[in-house]
Amino acid sequence: MSKWRKAAEEVPSVRKEEMEKMTAYMDTLTKPQGSLGRLEELAVKLAGIQGKPDVSRPAVLVFAGDHGVTAEGVSLYGKEVTQLMVHNFVQGGAAINVLAEEIGASVTVTDVGVAGDTLFGSVDAKVKQGTGNIAREAAMTTGEASLAIDAGIEASERAIAQGANLIIPGEMGIGNTTATSALLAAWTGASPEEVTGSGTGVTGEQLQLKQEVIGMALERASWESTLEAFAEIGGLEIAAMSGAMIEAAKNRTPVLIDGFIASIAAMGAVRLAPFTADYFIFGHLSAEAGHKLALETLKAEPLLELKMRLGEGTGAAAAYPLVSMAAAIADRMATFADLGIKQ
Amino acid sequence: MSKWRKAAEEVPSVRKEEMEKMTAYMDTLTKPQGSLGRLEELAVKLAGIQGKPDVSRPAVLVFAGDHGVTAEGVSLYGKEVTQLMVHNFVQGGAAINVLAEEIGASVTVTDVGVAGDTLFGSVDAKVKQGTGNIAREAAMTTGEASLAIDAGIEASERAIAQGANLIIPGEMGIGNTTATSALLAAWTGASPEEVTGSGTGVTGEQLQLKQEVIGMALERASWESTLEAFAEIGGLEIAAMSGAMIEAAKNRTPVLIDGFIASIAAMGAVRLAPFTADYFIFGHLSAEAGHKLALETLKAEPLLELKMRLGEGTGAAAAYPLVSMAAAIADRMATFADLGIKQ
Repeated sequence: MSKWRKAAEEVPSVRKEEMEKMTAYMDTLTKPQGSLGRLEELAVKLAGIQGKPDVSRPAVLVFAGDHGVTAEGVSLYGKEVTQLMVHNFVQGGAAINVLAEEIGASVTVTDVGVAGDTLFGSVDAKVKQGTGNIAREAAMTTGEASLAIDAGIEASERAIAQGANLIIPGEMGIGNTTATSALLAAWTGASPEEVTGSGTGVTGEQLQLKQEVIGMALERASWESTLEAFAEIGGLEIAAMSGAMIEAAKNRTPVLIDGFIASIAAMGAVRLAPFTADYFIFGHLSAEAGHKLALETLKAEPLLELKMRLGEGTGAAAAYPLVSMAAAIADRMATFADLGIKQ
Repeated sequence: MSKWRKAAEEVPSVRKEEMEKMTAYMDTLTKPQGSLGRLEELAVKLAGIQGKPDVSRPAVLVFAGDHGVTAEGVSLYGKEVTQLMVHNFVQGGAAINVLAEEIGASVTVTDVGVAGDTLFGSVDAKVKQGTGNIAREAAMTTGEASLAIDAGIEASERAIAQGANLIIPGEMGIGNTTATSALLAAWTGASPEEVTGSGTGVTGEQLQLKQEVIGMALERASWESTLEAFAEIGGLEIAAMSGAMIEAAKNRTPVLIDGFIASIAAMGAVRLAPFTADYFIFGHLSAEAGHKLALETLKAEPLLELKMRLGEGTGAAAAYPLVSMAAAIADRMATFADLGIKQ
């Protein structure tokens, strides 16, 4: 049995009684009731997940993989850029490295399917040398999809064993907004036009081509299970992110969700393990078309809207300080009783 | 001559050429163009203000003052709570203390007009024992308003001399949303209904009373200059915040603006020293009615919208990490050239 099936069965429900206690506690703090708005909601959510909120050791898990569909010309960049960016992550020069440093998070890069050698400094969990071209063939087999999800399970498992108490799944993979848009269409019934955005920055005819390619993938592929959808339409790194989310939830660890791609991975995780949904905090509404639909489907209200559309986990990292502030408020504010004020 | 008049004349314009340089630099970093959205805009803004962005030493300046208008019953809390909250700030138990600790900011509390003794641990800049009841009399004289603005000038001056490179003005004063709403109405011509919100949480009849009180203040008062408006309608701590903003701008130091009350202080600062506007970064759209109108008037787009309505500088503190991230991106990301990619 694959690791993820077992983990999916073991995701516990969050603790409603801890949430009620925290809700009541928030009203004893030295501020007008409810005046810290979504920070209070976050504190309550964290209480349900963790009991005592503590997100002091965030871990960014970046999963990287290539996409055969880049052969169709759906991206501004060639797929060699995936490998170059893995190099950049390992060297510490990418946006996510800089933001992770700002929030005191570790960054681990897991290669689940980059075409080429696995780079020194990244975790080798390569399932294959990139996916098939989904316009014309399956991305991978269901066995490979299972391995990719397990790679995510293991990445979270290791991070949590090392002390992580909040997980930020990120990704890198030239072509992966194409796979993501196709998965969103597959899981919501939306049209290619509704789910397709500019990705790295494609516009005009190239954007239209991208829509057509997504249409071809949807027409070609058929699937019943979520695993089959991952296999047909793919994204090794997307499947891995779903796994990372499930394992975090299994360990009562909050997951801070990045933008478009992470949200579709979240959708996949919830399809595989429904209780996982309660462990998600949505960081950022991406500028990528399709993200709004994804969030509506997930009934999610992201914390930020900053016109970011980079991925890597950057939108989630940008939102992390708010989650940390929520935990701090629950931990360190004075109560009215401390000030000698009767309530 | 009061200090603030001199400072107002000395506010420099921001450097457009530094902004252009930073805009071009952003496109050399290892990310799709524009994909960091508002973080890139912030980096450009900081470059205009500072040259090289550096917001590593944020200072929260909380100004506290009482409001005679509480006698009309416009707040859920009595005015003794202002003094209790100053005590709370000095002890480190208020929301702003907790958030400031999270962002590594110093917190200084300046008493510009709390009724009662000045508390040990706060800066004594008391102009008077709270304002007059603006429904029936002027808040203060223009001379007192001038002293209050100067108290803010001096608070920023000291913080910057001690190394602060970003200023967060905050406030505490039971009754101060009433004065703030009245100032907003005075400066925009909006009606009491449009500018009045729940403050600490008033609703129903008490909210209606608050609107009536604001109407009474507007009917009673007459003013020509901005200084006269401060004197008539008041807010010692609001005037002080305006001063803090002007002095920061004079020193090419970015000012992170909190919610409703800080935004009206920002409006006051711009009326006194128009160039100050380019030094503002707006942190948070408050849940307080009237803030949207204030932001529209200031043509400001806040970074966050978290349903917070506490004041003290908390909404700005919550937004600070984004400003810090913008500076970090400008400082530490790899360029495409670093990766050997031609652009």
